[in-house]
Amino acid sequence: MPITKHTPRPEEFAAVDLGSNSFHMVIARVVDGAMQIIGRLKQRVHLADGLDDNSMLNEEAMERGLSCLALFAERLQGFSPDNVCIVGTHTLRQARNATEFLKRAEKVIPFPIEIIPGNEEARLIFMGVEHTQPEKGRKLVVDIGGGSTELVIGENFDPVLVESRRMGCVSFGQTFFPNGVISPVAFNRARLAAVQKLETLAWQYRLKGWDVAMGASGTIKAACEVLLAMGEKDGMITPERLDKLTTEVLKYNHVLNLSLPGLSDERREVFLPGLAILCGVFDALKIKELRLSDGALREGVLYEMEGRFRHQDIRIRTAQSLANQYNIDDDQARRVLETTTYLFDQWQAANPKLSNPQLAALLKWASMLHEIGLNINHSGMHRHSAYILQNSNLPGFNQEQQTLMALLVRFHRKAIKLDELPRFTLFKKKQYLPLIQLLRLGVLLNNQRQATTTPPSLVLTTDENHWTLCFPHDWFSQNALVLLDLEKEQQYWEAVTGWKLTIEEAQPEEASAA
Amino acid sequence: MPITKHTPRPEEFAAVDLGSNSFHMVIARVVDGAMQIIGRLKQRVHLADGLDDNSMLNEEAMERGLSCLALFAERLQGFSPDNVCIVGTHTLRQARNATEFLKRAEKVIPFPIEIIPGNEEARLIFMGVEHTQPEKGRKLVVDIGGGSTELVIGENFDPVLVESRRMGCVSFGQTFFPNGVISPVAFNRARLAAVQKLETLAWQYRLKGWDVAMGASGTIKAACEVLLAMGEKDGMITPERLDKLTTEVLKYNHVLNLSLPGLSDERREVFLPGLAILCGVFDALKIKELRLSDGALREGVLYEMEGRFRHQDIRIRTAQSLANQYNIDDDQARRVLETTTYLFDQWQAANPKLSNPQLAALLKWASMLHEIGLNINHSGMHRHSAYILQNSNLPGFNQEQQTLMALLVRFHRKAIKLDELPRFTLFKKKQYLPLIQLLRLGVLLNNQRQATTTPPSLVLTTDENHWTLCFPHDWFSQNALVLLDLEKEQQYWEAVTGWKLTIEEAQPEEASAA
Repeated sequence: MPITKHTPRPEEFAAVDLGSNSFHMVIARVVDGAMQIIGRLKQRVHLADGLDDNSMLNEEAMERGLSCLALFAERLQGFSPDNVCIVGTHTLRQARNATEFLKRAEKVIPFPIEIIPGNEEARLIFMGVEHTQPEKGRKLVVDIGGGSTELVIGENFDPVLVESRRMGCVSFGQTFFPNGVISPVAFNRARLAAVQKLETLAWQYRLKGWDVAMGASGTIKAACEVLLAMGEKDGMITPERLDKLTTEVLKYNHVLNLSLPGLSDERREVFLPGLAILCGVFDALKIKELRLSDGALREGVLYEMEGRFRHQDIRIRTAQSLANQYNIDDDQARRVLETTTYLFDQWQAANPKLSNPQLAALLKWASMLHEIGLNINHSGMHRHSAYILQNSNLPGFNQEQQTLMALLVRFHRKAIKLDELPRFTLFKKKQYLPLIQLLRLGVLLNNQRQATTTPPSLVLTTDENHWTLCFPHDWFSQNALVLLDLEKEQQYWEAVTGWKLTIEEAQPEEASAA
Repeated sequence: MPITKHTPRPEEFAAVDLGSNSFHMVIARVVDGAMQIIGRLKQRVHLADGLDDNSMLNEEAMERGLSCLALFAERLQGFSPDNVCIVGTHTLRQARNATEFLKRAEKVIPFPIEIIPGNEEARLIFMGVEHTQPEKGRKLVVDIGGGSTELVIGENFDPVLVESRRMGCVSFGQTFFPNGVISPVAFNRARLAAVQKLETLAWQYRLKGWDVAMGASGTIKAACEVLLAMGEKDGMITPERLDKLTTEVLKYNHVLNLSLPGLSDERREVFLPGLAILCGVFDALKIKELRLSDGALREGVLYEMEGRFRHQDIRIRTAQSLANQYNIDDDQARRVLETTTYLFDQWQAANPKLSNPQLAALLKWASMLHEIGLNINHSGMHRHSAYILQNSNLPGFNQEQQTLMALLVRFHRKAIKLDELPRFTLFKKKQYLPLIQLLRLGVLLNNQRQATTTPPSLVLTTDENHWTLCFPHDWFSQNALVLLDLEKEQQYWEAVTGWKLTIEEAQPEEASAA
């Protein structure tokens, strides 16, 4: 029989962005190493409108979101979970009942939703622009969304300044144009408020400077489209053109009457507040010209997803940068990583259903970074390390991954307080609690900060929460301190309901042979 | 009339150390630039014995402490408050009702008591040794107290490694020799427990190394005295001599029967646990020889007190070191310091009774350090700065000073939450709340990060909590952003009961002349 060469169907990827104004989905496939967009879906969900004064998302908004997700789910049938990434942004960050939304979404769409921090959103937007725009040199990227505005300066796929601010065309509309009434006073107030929001960061951006400024998202796209329809054919936004646009808009007295060439119906309501923010950004950063970028958050997510498996992992750079910034002891980090990985492999072999590569990776980063708090103080170091991990910008990690790493590090020594556990939707307790146990043992066995206290024949057996560590025969006679530490550790475990740690030494070989 | 040269009576200083085992007072005067000790007082108060399992100091222990303070107070009659420094150490750090003790102490002795963090205690001990011992080179200093053990390595008045551990001769006595019964097993357990306590830091000390090891405090003094009486006349403690001492001690079966040459009656009860800790310290750090130092905590306090007025202020170095470590923007720190100081001077002139040099100094450090949290994240920077200040070792600051700086920085922007105020015994609300207000205004007026937004003729008037800032005529027409920030600030103040901020512009000069 002749051997026919089978060309596999190219893999498809999907990135979904649950924005404050619209939900977007983009589907792509990798052809000859290039990302080829094969489909886009968009629905205006105006989620941000459903957020009340107490930051609770109301039922109507939830339903709008869920029915859009159901629509997307149809298209995603048959996709591997590794090839779908759904990110939630500002409104879901703000919503105090976001967990409820996520739980209901689980039933509608069988892929996890990651709520990403504002700075991670900004970084992904920058990456989306970098991957899709031909311009070289240092870029300023501006994205004015429904609930937040992202500002990034970076070069050659390396974001240097990354910020996210809570102002967007939906929220500014509610605040400054509450009944849709247009007035020059209201417009100027909104524009100045935008400048004020950027006050504490604009100096850094002006100082850093850029070669080319790019804008993403609906607000900037709409401004470009109107300018184009008004005759500015090069697609460039300049302060003079913004003034011209503003003059046009301020001829109207209500947003519902707004009738500008090139302005779509569904953009009409949020165009004015978006324009005020855009003018404020130009004022604060003293931008001279800005061009529209097609790529943004969704493309960033798409390329990262693909890149995370094939190219450099941004998380390695993030971890390395933290390690450098906080001067950690690399040798000790490596020792703890080795021991923890050694134990993790044994745990994983016994619990294949609980483990997954993501958890393994997070345990790895936590092992490497557990001492970054030393810089603040040796005393309480585990708390300081966790504080830094929880509060820093960690490019490449979503909010729950960041929180999980902080949690592992928080309890890598001293008392284990399970009543202080944060809530996760991406991870289950039976998946991540063992990671705490593994990291504790990995650290404990390296308390001496020497290469020798983890015996190569150490055996970990796990029976639910009853773990047994079996050391070589007569090992403790030379390692009394490790035994003391393990005894102390047994007490810590006993204080947790159901946890038990047994320490054994192997039988002498003669005895077992007898 | 002939002019007779009047030689002023030399100034006297007193340092009081409220230890876990004994209270000590040392009085000195400065003669020809040298510190001359002119009196010592000591009373065994065994405060640590009065700490129950819930870390509450019982009535008997409080009374022992208070009656000792009353005795000291007699000797201190006529001393200027600037010349007396009383520090509390481990037991008072631990006691949850320490505030009650401090309040009762106020009535007995008219000088404030500062509870100092363990690391500050360690630093002062090192300074006391540096000032009083002729040895040159890098020093290891060990102090085994009633409740804590301090370990410092430093050179030329510069402490490099500074640690304090919760183990002392009183607490180890309770844990390992509960009924005073002596056994080799109990001794070895105590010794190993000491090694374990030092496990996570010993490697750094061994790595750093030292030229000479010095010991301070009663435990080490007693060991030296017994060795001397046993014939070791050079006063040196070595591992071999410790073994010899241990062998002697283990011949007894109860601490009350201990009868060693050179051992005083009042040291008898705590000698054995102290010896176990000393042996553990030798084991962990691999000390070959150690010599007794006369100077320790009290001498450190004394020299610091004197030095704080005449020589270099350790706090300058502390602040500078933090500023470097966290890469703060020096220019901005200086601008905020200038504006805040400018406003502070006006507040002080109007409220001379509330102000004092200590508060002015703390406001100054807070102004300089308010941005150290930027390193963790721009978002929530005020919280991160406060976290770092609260949790770092800050040589030269006592616990309440550290907490106050953290508090000022915590609320230097965003919402003011007075229900989150910590408790102070050294500072009153009406003294430190204005500092929060001053720092906020100092920061706000420099939001532009330029030299220009604090007009030189700015006038602050304060009527209790109703403050008025009067800007030059027509100033806001050129500074609309500052006005917006001030309006936002007014809202923050209004959210605090009784606080009010009024913003004015001065009348034009013609009008005021008319």
